[in-house]
Amino acid sequence: MSDEFARLKQTLGTIHDLERVASLLAWDQEAMMPPQGAEGRADQRATLVRFAHELLVSDELRRLLEELRSFEESQPYESDEASLIRVVRRDNEKARRVPAELRAALSRAGSLGLGAWLDARARRDFRVLLPHLEEQLELKRRYVECFEPADDPYDVLLDDFEPGLTTAEAESVLEALKEELVPLVAAVPELDPREDLARSGPFDLDALRRFSLGLLRELGFEPDAWRLDRAEHPFAMAASLGDIRITTHFHEGHLGGLFACLHEFGHGLYERQVSPALERTPLATGASSALHESQSRMWENLVGRSRAFWVHAYPALQGTFPERLGRGGLEAFYRSINRIQPSLIRVDADEVTYNLHIIVRFELEREVLAGRLGLADLPAAFDERVQAYLGLDVPDVRDGVLQDMHWADLTFGYFPTYSLGNVISVQIWERARADLADLDRAMERGEFGDLRDWLREHLHRHGRKFTPRETLERAAGGQIDPAPYVRYLKDKLETTFGVAVA
Amino acid sequence: MSDEFARLKQTLGTIHDLERVASLLAWDQEAMMPPQGAEGRADQRATLVRFAHELLVSDELRRLLEELRSFEESQPYESDEASLIRVVRRDNEKARRVPAELRAALSRAGSLGLGAWLDARARRDFRVLLPHLEEQLELKRRYVECFEPADDPYDVLLDDFEPGLTTAEAESVLEALKEELVPLVAAVPELDPREDLARSGPFDLDALRRFSLGLLRELGFEPDAWRLDRAEHPFAMAASLGDIRITTHFHEGHLGGLFACLHEFGHGLYERQVSPALERTPLATGASSALHESQSRMWENLVGRSRAFWVHAYPALQGTFPERLGRGGLEAFYRSINRIQPSLIRVDADEVTYNLHIIVRFELEREVLAGRLGLADLPAAFDERVQAYLGLDVPDVRDGVLQDMHWADLTFGYFPTYSLGNVISVQIWERARADLADLDRAMERGEFGDLRDWLREHLHRHGRKFTPRETLERAAGGQIDPAPYVRYLKDKLETTFGVAVA
Repeated sequence: MSDEFARLKQTLGTIHDLERVASLLAWDQEAMMPPQGAEGRADQRATLVRFAHELLVSDELRRLLEELRSFEESQPYESDEASLIRVVRRDNEKARRVPAELRAALSRAGSLGLGAWLDARARRDFRVLLPHLEEQLELKRRYVECFEPADDPYDVLLDDFEPGLTTAEAESVLEALKEELVPLVAAVPELDPREDLARSGPFDLDALRRFSLGLLRELGFEPDAWRLDRAEHPFAMAASLGDIRITTHFHEGHLGGLFACLHEFGHGLYERQVSPALERTPLATGASSALHESQSRMWENLVGRSRAFWVHAYPALQGTFPERLGRGGLEAFYRSINRIQPSLIRVDADEVTYNLHIIVRFELEREVLAGRLGLADLPAAFDERVQAYLGLDVPDVRDGVLQDMHWADLTFGYFPTYSLGNVISVQIWERARADLADLDRAMERGEFGDLRDWLREHLHRHGRKFTPRETLERAAGGQIDPAPYVRYLKDKLETTFGVAVA
Repeated sequence: MSDEFARLKQTLGTIHDLERVASLLAWDQEAMMPPQGAEGRADQRATLVRFAHELLVSDELRRLLEELRSFEESQPYESDEASLIRVVRRDNEKARRVPAELRAALSRAGSLGLGAWLDARARRDFRVLLPHLEEQLELKRRYVECFEPADDPYDVLLDDFEPGLTTAEAESVLEALKEELVPLVAAVPELDPREDLARSGPFDLDALRRFSLGLLRELGFEPDAWRLDRAEHPFAMAASLGDIRITTHFHEGHLGGLFACLHEFGHGLYERQVSPALERTPLATGASSALHESQSRMWENLVGRSRAFWVHAYPALQGTFPERLGRGGLEAFYRSINRIQPSLIRVDADEVTYNLHIIVRFELEREVLAGRLGLADLPAAFDERVQAYLGLDVPDVRDGVLQDMHWADLTFGYFPTYSLGNVISVQIWERARADLADLDRAMERGEFGDLRDWLREHLHRHGRKFTPRETLERAAGGQIDPAPYVRYLKDKLETTFGVAVA
């Protein structure tokens, strides 16, 4: 190993330490920190992020990368070494394009925007947020101008979450979903509330937590390398490959917190199964937002909302809540957890309508960025689009345009990765099923080791070595394609609810 | 405010952020982290500590301090500004004396030493630790040589924890304690185990935790600025002035975990009540180890083992554990929590014998450092000294020389601050009592606000602005003096157990 490469690893290790700690501080803030710690915490995070960024854009790192060109070329493309240099070169070039002053302005606008969003929600008044969104949009346009002109300015924003994917590609996938799913949703009959077992609480919170933890352990949550805690908005975080932390939010009325556990377990397992050889480098994480989401959705939906899984798990769940579930059989429970019903809140939406929430937001943020929709007109446009795709009236701005923090916190361009993740989850799942002929039987027996191993081998271990496109090619044997996902949904609706759609 | 001073504050703010985060990582490691996170965590902490240290010893900081000399002289000695420059100058000068290479060697030896200590304990074999102690002693001698020659090489080590205090002063206090306490211990009658209510478990752990938390809230633990968690070895930590975290360890058999809460509350309150004007500077913490310990011991013993406190708290404790305490009255409970009885384990020792454990260790570490005692002879010397001062045989090396981690982790020079803290706690307490004539009555009513305010005004708010000597002068109106502490102990033993000692 060359001296320069050793120095590169050292610098990257330092950056990685700072970023991991910044993530841990965020976890701590959500899951542990008393409220009065907020001010000190903001300073602490800013200091770590600044150090990490200064190292990433440093002339020294750039020089090192130049010196390493011939070494990189001497190594196979797939090697850890060539991959590390290649990815860091891209990170460094992207980061250096954005002036420090603009980056600071974005960061400040994001913090202020979040505060304004909370305030606007409390006051049910979009106008509180509007001036912040206007400033943010201006900053985001300046950000876009830092990069080579793209076919669509949205390309630049999307690239931060899904490197290499164009807006046109994302649009074609989401358009296909819209075309298929809007009529599908309209055709599904409503579930009789008396049969809606998964929402038949009160469920005792301690018992629900114990049951969820037991289930997670069967899936692969090792107590000496994972934690499960409570957070208002569930998320997953890796403090290191040996320290994976997931959070959830249990409710008395329904079992949503259990499915949030499965979802976050999917994120956590991706981080957990990255090759240890990549630890303390920027490759020790998932390849993109959509690929990450494919893993959370796989464990939440393709495992966690499958019949096979509950053949195994339902007796124990029933035994945990005999008063609530004692009289409801597996089939009723299965229909309940797969209930399809338009609703106002994205994060509570079912497998099908979830994508319509995403499509609403994706279309609107593109129109705003392109200047075709003024920010002041966003609330009305939001409500119209919800009516058109979900058939619902929005009674309160908090359930409408002020529902998500994603615009207020400057993450324009993030929304589509949620639906792309759904699409990819089924592409990968079909591959895994083809290789693991016994997968359904294994799930019925509560055995998940082969699935974990398959995911490690074909996806997780690569971390961020390859582009999302290359990574998907390796895991699914092709490019992003909505057809398997649509097929999967139609098949499920037909066999579960007797809905036959062409 | 001068430009240079603003730059100084900025640099110190950054250092402070890094150090606070390093402390939080340590808290997380003890209280939250899954075991497999240890390797990544070690890298992360090392990175933060390195950055903080590089900033502290930087030429830039030294230049700034030079430029600020006239500004410092223009400000009153007691001002925050002059104090900050004065203290940082001292920190910078001390830190610059130690070469980076020696500092790294010490840090590595400390980590390896801790591992070896755990291993030696598991194998009940001091020889596993011996080579590590030998290397550490050599490194500590090199460390001592980095500083101006002192009367005693131990002065240099003590100065890291108790700046400005000489070994001779510490020795005179500890010698006085030894002379008074050894005969005192021998004269106290044993408590009938059937009357030992505080050790009459099993106590339900959940109930004990709830009761402790309720008590802490009465003392001043604000839920929006504090946390209480479990850790193997209790400690306190401030992530910021608004984020104080204490830990404890509850046991079924006895109420020790409750007293650990009171102890750690004292540490936490000191950090919590530092003047907000000092936040994000190195002055935002306690003045020294002994002053910090004076605060933990005050809340644990002078409040928490007083009759007045339990006049207030005992009915609720009895109500919480009616089966265990229902038949025992306040006086029996008071005798039980003040039981004096030689025992092998320092951290479980009572108010009186605790100091004898410290004296054993202080004498031995001085003899080792001076070369009068070889490390290979340390186990036998330890056992002999325990026999001489506590009258006990040491049956197992784990309860003897391998009991504490303090030598293995390179904290030679720390032990005496525990007993000095006991001594100081009574000096400050007498002052507070003189000013707050109503203190006992207030405790009987469960009111602690006046005591907290008094401590804030006379001690806590100053943080690290003044030297320990100056700080003690302000809080206790004099220098360190064992007489009030000895008087307090004798008085308590006489009124509680009828032990009359001249």
